[in-house]
Order: sequence, then C-alpha cells, then structure tokens
Amino acid sequence: MGNLIEPLGCHDSECGLPTALESMGERWSFMILRAAFNGLKHFEEMQSSLGIARNILANRLGRLVDSEILERCPCPDDRRKIEYRLTEKGHALLPAMIALRQWGERFGTGVASNPVLCDRRDHLPVQQVRVQAHDGRPLDWHDLLWVDQSDLVAQAAE
Amino acid sequence: MGNLIEPLGCHDSECGLPTALESMGERWSFMILRAAFNGLKHFEEMQSSLGIARNILANRLGRLVDSEILERCPCPDDRRKIEYRLTEKGHALLPAMIALRQWGERFGTGVASNPVLCDRRDHLPVQQVRVQAHDGRPLDWHDLLWVDQSDLVAQAAE
Repeated sequence: MGNLIEPLGCHDSECGLPTALESMGERWSFMILRAAFNGLKHFEEMQSSLGIARNILANRLGRLVDSEILERCPCPDDRRKIEYRLTEKGHALLPAMIALRQWGERFGTGVASNPVLCDRRDHLPVQQVRVQAHDGRPLDWHDLLWVDQSDLVAQAAE
Repeated sequence: MGNLIEPLGCHDSECGLPTALESMGERWSFMILRAAFNGLKHFEEMQSSLGIARNILANRLGRLVDSEILERCPCPDDRRKIEYRLTEKGHALLPAMIALRQWGERFGTGVASNPVLCDRRDHLPVQQVRVQAHDGRPLDWHDLLWVDQSDLVAQAAE
C-alpha cells in the first residue's frame, strides 16, 4: 500500500485551500458570490442589497474578476453599462457556499433557515452537503486518510 | 404549491451564510481550522506551521474559541499547558473546508493536489463535494429553488 501520510496531511504548495482562500478568504467575497447566485448583476444592485461601501465593493468585484470567478460583460440591453456574471469557476463554488450556509443555519443562533433550498424537480429540501466515499457513503474526519498521489497510481496499476 | 421564492432567495436575517462568515470569513480562520484537522493542537505548532504572526494567531484562536469552533483545554500530559481542540461545531465545518480545497485544486494553477484525500476503508479518493437532492441526484444551481418554510409544511400536510 506504500507510505500513507497521516494525519498531518498537506502542505501549502500541495493543498488547494490556500489557493481558494486567496480568492475567497474574505467575508465580502462570499456575500458578493451569494448576490451573484441570487441573480444580481449590477454594481448598484449589489451595493444596495449588501449595504457595502462603494469603494470596498469595487475592490472586491475587481478581485473576483481577476480571479475569474466573475466576468465583466456589457449589458445586453444597454451596452454602455457593465454587468457581472458568474463564470464556470464561479458556479463551481456552489457546494462550498451551500456547505457554509448550512453550517451557519445549524449552529447560528437566531437564523430562521428560511427560505429553504429545494430541488426544482420535486420541491423537496436538498441534502446536507457531505464528504462522501466513491460509493456515496458519508465520511467523517476519522474516516479519512491522506494518500500520496504516487501510491494511488501504484494501487491502480496493481 | 404556494408562493415559491426565486431567484432572489434569502435575506441576511434568514440566511446562514452571514452567520457562518462571522466566524469563518477570514483567510486565517480556515487555515487554522485546517491545522486543527491535521492534528495540530498547540499555539507554537500552529505558529510555526502556518507562519502567522503571533498576535494574529492569538487573536484568531480567540475568535474561534468564542465561536465555539475550537475549545481551550489543559494538555493531558502537562496541565499547565493549553491545547486547542475541535468541537462538534468545528468538526461540522469539514464539508465546507473540503469543498473549498477541491475548488482550489480544480481551478488553482500550480497546485499539485497531493496528497489525495481518501476513504480510510478502501484507500480510494473521496468524491467531489456536491449539492444533492434528497435521493442523491447531483444538483446544479439551475436545479435549485428557494421554497418558503411555510410552503414546505403545507406540502408535508397534504
């Protein structure tokens, strides 16, 4: 099975977390992302919805565009105006955002958890976001193990 | 089916995300959380592992303790020393942390994605963290709908 690494896991150069936090490690980044998922596209809409200072919003939008989470596009109905749209990379933050929201609902005091995020098909609430094995079993931290990439390749070749 | 709310979704008083970001909306919070998951318990270990300034680490650890994500306990082997342990609330941040890490791996440049997070039982890589319907179907943003809590209750009673 080779040398399994545990529990100390990953270092910065080999872990996606510091990279992710370069773009998203700041309270407003997730709030702006939520606004974008909620269909807000314009600076003014976001500014009034979030109650964020204009200079901070401009700065954070700039960073999200630099990180290719949002893209600046001309408005279809008035090409002198700019709108911000989620890119594929931005859309891919959905599980992280929902996991944070669910955690806040579960442990926050005074959060009404309303409205409820549901499946459009049957209008039933979505599951709690979980870490799962390849076959769907839910995994907790003590079920996890760090395996060096080279040992995975060796296993697959066996 | 009552009045479905879409797409503008939730407001601050009803959403877990702002609550979550009060505790975790800062780069170091997630890095300290990662260190705690990786088994680091002591101030000195975290300080040298993260390369964070001592006053910032002390401040952030204090906030994580105040948020009940970490708890301060006397060391079992030297009760004059303090160690920081993840609480149940802290452990529950695992899916959000792994979702962010996977996103950073997928979109970060120069991230080796090594070691790989695997299931301890069969040493196979874990799935990508996803949003799923009650029956396990993966859901994308356009598959989701906000439903008012009162409409869910009405549905269940029908």
